[in-house]
Amino acid sequence: MKVLLVFAHPEPRSLNAALRDVAIKALEAEGHEVWVSDLYAERWKAQVDLGDFPELASEARLKVPAASGEGFAAGALTDDVKAEQDKLLWADVLILQFPLWWFSMPAILKGWVDRVFARGFAYGVGEHSDSKWGDRYGEGVFAGKRAMLVVTTGGWQQHYGPRGVNGPIDDLLFPINHGILFYPGYDVLPPFVVHSADRIKESGFEAIAEDLRERMRTLATTPPLAYRPQNGGDYLIPNCELRPGLGEPGASGFALHIRPAAAVVEVVVGDAQRAV
Amino acid sequence: MKVLLVFAHPEPRSLNAALRDVAIKALEAEGHEVWVSDLYAERWKAQVDLGDFPELASEARLKVPAASGEGFAAGALTDDVKAEQDKLLWADVLILQFPLWWFSMPAILKGWVDRVFARGFAYGVGEHSDSKWGDRYGEGVFAGKRAMLVVTTGGWQQHYGPRGVNGPIDDLLFPINHGILFYPGYDVLPPFVVHSADRIKESGFEAIAEDLRERMRTLATTPPLAYRPQNGGDYLIPNCELRPGLGEPGASGFALHIRPAAAVVEVVVGDAQRAV
Repeated sequence: MKVLLVFAHPEPRSLNAALRDVAIKALEAEGHEVWVSDLYAERWKAQVDLGDFPELASEARLKVPAASGEGFAAGALTDDVKAEQDKLLWADVLILQFPLWWFSMPAILKGWVDRVFARGFAYGVGEHSDSKWGDRYGEGVFAGKRAMLVVTTGGWQQHYGPRGVNGPIDDLLFPINHGILFYPGYDVLPPFVVHSADRIKESGFEAIAEDLRERMRTLATTPPLAYRPQNGGDYLIPNCELRPGLGEPGASGFALHIRPAAAVVEVVVGDAQRAV
Repeated sequence: MKVLLVFAHPEPRSLNAALRDVAIKALEAEGHEVWVSDLYAERWKAQVDLGDFPELASEARLKVPAASGEGFAAGALTDDVKAEQDKLLWADVLILQFPLWWFSMPAILKGWVDRVFARGFAYGVGEHSDSKWGDRYGEGVFAGKRAMLVVTTGGWQQHYGPRGVNGPIDDLLFPINHGILFYPGYDVLPPFVVHSADRIKESGFEAIAEDLRERMRTLATTPPLAYRPQNGGDYLIPNCELRPGLGEPGASGFALHIRPAAAVVEVVVGDAQRAV
């Protein structure tokens, strides 16, 4: 397979960089091709601004989604953005690797998403009508590809646990996993998370590295998170609300958008071809 | 009161800019002082990098939390960062205004947080021991101040509803409201959210503006979100896990960290002085 690893840490001698190199080596040992976008090393421009839309008339009001869509359709986005889009189309698997800063991505990586995931490419795709609201959440340009986060945190694992004060790590990552990766069609694998990153001793590194190697070896076979496809029958269209009766009784929040394991089996049995 | 409004939209003729001006006018009419940080206009540097730590030895490995803490303690962070920290200390109320891009802040605003919320200032503050884990989540440098988001989205309100496919807007904003604002001590007000921002006609603007004016008029009196203080008795320390028995039966995810209305009353009755 072809793997694009987007790396967002400013220090080449960091734990993140060491883990990146472990991942690359493990992937190459499996015969995969790996391409790395090292955002700091490449001095990636983080913010969306007028400079992203060179063909916009100089006096025009910047409406970002419109300008993004027009620029993409005309092949007129900037070269750095087009290069990243080409890499995404080339890759079968996308890995985003970053330290969790303030419970989300570093700004430079958020800016990679904001700029590269253009309208007409990663969103605003497909029919938008009363009976369909876009190719998204399970459909889209990256359908059939896989994506995965590799994340380090400074905090304790318990603080990110089911009842931890930070909120559960899977919920904190939901806006990324579901909102950025599943949205344009990726099958999203469970994240690889290393907690208390600043407290890892050299003696502890090898065990983490081996866990990561195992995740790289199983990249093609690890079952993805069971997010519900928007257009698979679970949601009312065009309101995109989960149908009454679906979801665990009493469940709320992000958990509603993950299909319970039993339901997956049931649906697959009833509709083996589509496996919605 | 003194209000700092941090504004993150690239277009001065946008809906966001119009709403910002409505807010400023309403605040000034109430006698409040307003300071605006217009991140695009001020060409804010989005990414954390080596340039943020001018006193770091040239061959030193960049560990961001350590460098941030040392730079803050020595008064050696960059002037743009120190100016924002001074504004935050000056202000009684912080408003962050931005369009929701990919279910979070634009990169330029994330970079404002990543750079300005230094260690020793906004995190890593207070005693860290077996009996206390920092002044955070309700305590910290901004305790006694208020904060609030003003957010526009491109999507439908229903898509962000309790069962909407995007996930509930309050959960999508939790990493910001709870993780960025409540963490260093702010009382966080319910966000002001405008959905389908690109579909608002001129005729619809005045009603939205009036809602925003009302929120500005009630800035001092609106009850904050009932997030649970970390050190108020609801969490086991130092694991920071919510005590068994707290939280609605069956609740999970972010909802656990909001005190049910009934419980607030109950605790206040039992412990009127602390009102934990």
